[in-house]
Amino acid sequence: MISVAIIGTGNLGFHLYNAFSKVKSNLTVTQYNSRDLKDLSETDVTIIAVSDDAIPEVSSKIQNSFVVHTSGNTEMNQLKNSTRKGVFYPPQSFTKEKQIDFSQVPFCLETENEEDYQLLCHLANMLGSQFYKIDSQQRKYIHIAAVFANNFTNHLFQIAKDICDTQQIPFHILYPIIEETSKKIKSMDPKNAQTGPAIRNDQKTIKNHLNLLNSSQKDIYQKLTNSIQEHGKKL
Amino acid sequence: MISVAIIGTGNLGFHLYNAFSKVKSNLTVTQYNSRDLKDLSETDVTIIAVSDDAIPEVSSKIQNSFVVHTSGNTEMNQLKNSTRKGVFYPPQSFTKEKQIDFSQVPFCLETENEEDYQLLCHLANMLGSQFYKIDSQQRKYIHIAAVFANNFTNHLFQIAKDICDTQQIPFHILYPIIEETSKKIKSMDPKNAQTGPAIRNDQKTIKNHLNLLNSSQKDIYQKLTNSIQEHGKKL
Repeated sequence: MISVAIIGTGNLGFHLYNAFSKVKSNLTVTQYNSRDLKDLSETDVTIIAVSDDAIPEVSSKIQNSFVVHTSGNTEMNQLKNSTRKGVFYPPQSFTKEKQIDFSQVPFCLETENEEDYQLLCHLANMLGSQFYKIDSQQRKYIHIAAVFANNFTNHLFQIAKDICDTQQIPFHILYPIIEETSKKIKSMDPKNAQTGPAIRNDQKTIKNHLNLLNSSQKDIYQKLTNSIQEHGKKL
Repeated sequence: MISVAIIGTGNLGFHLYNAFSKVKSNLTVTQYNSRDLKDLSETDVTIIAVSDDAIPEVSSKIQNSFVVHTSGNTEMNQLKNSTRKGVFYPPQSFTKEKQIDFSQVPFCLETENEEDYQLLCHLANMLGSQFYKIDSQQRKYIHIAAVFANNFTNHLFQIAKDICDTQQIPFHILYPIIEETSKKIKSMDPKNAQTGPAIRNDQKTIKNHLNLLNSSQKDIYQKLTNSIQEHGKKL
């Protein structure tokens, strides 16, 4: 039997608690608000899912024997508990309103010793998740890469939707190309999947497009077009 | 029985010909190189899948009764055949090396008359594709939106992969978040799906990230972060 405490009630705390609650055997899970830890009892793993800035302070108040944080951008030694430390970081995008399938949530694991590493592997396994041994330095870069692959990508979808909205075009016309774009990189390197006016250096189309965009859209179009062309030269 | 001629042997001509060839009944299809049209015989629909610049010249050489182009960025009247005109534009990304499921290829249709429109609907149906009535003006904007949703998004995936590569991180760790990002917008408006340091205005994380990027990555990071923040203010 493994006992887990989850500290934090945000997006990640919410989904982690739900996912662990569904594990039927050999696991107990309890959730706590980070501002009210007086009832926190000893557990095998105490998972802190709070904002990055709050990790040192919250962890400093915990006496449990093994405390892990869930942040991509925070070194393991930012945990200020005096006991064992680790990291259980899922590079995935969580929103309370949207259910998440934990078989599609990889975990980046870091610990001070092999025994704790095996414990975190076991936890990830219980959720049906993939896991990877990733140190604090690598994890920072995964976090940045995820900003490009998720935050910035979603913003491009927002711009695409804005463009459709101005012309009364249903945005769902683009769902298939969006899905294909994300699927294609699983079987092809993104550099080989690059198509469009930028990589072809099709100046006529680029100029036509720039003329139809508003100033902030134009700015991003120009910047990404230049970047695609510069990147193409380096290959 | 519908007869179709496909003119062009690039990515789209290749996939269109393959898809129509698989339609077992009530359809014949023949493919031609755009530089050799002497054997072109009359068909119900003649589909030109050539580069945008070549559309006027290639179409001017065709006597067939109904000629359509497949370009997002080209007005229907750039067809210079003296007979009936139309557009059969798939906003999708095609690569010869990768099979495509035509049930995931929407078609944007434009014609001069209703009868031709019905014919193109019928063709799209035979491929198992969705279709939409879209005029030349709207189609230009769909093409631009697709540049953001596909070309630019793929470039962000390339940058994410570059970042992973420098740290010996397997890029496939990010496949799930990439897939989730593209799926999420089907059930949520992208503006509600926006997460990350930019929309939270988490200056500390943004600064950390900028310090770890090379100059061209930094430039794009800064530009997209500003754009997310500006966009957020407008909501």
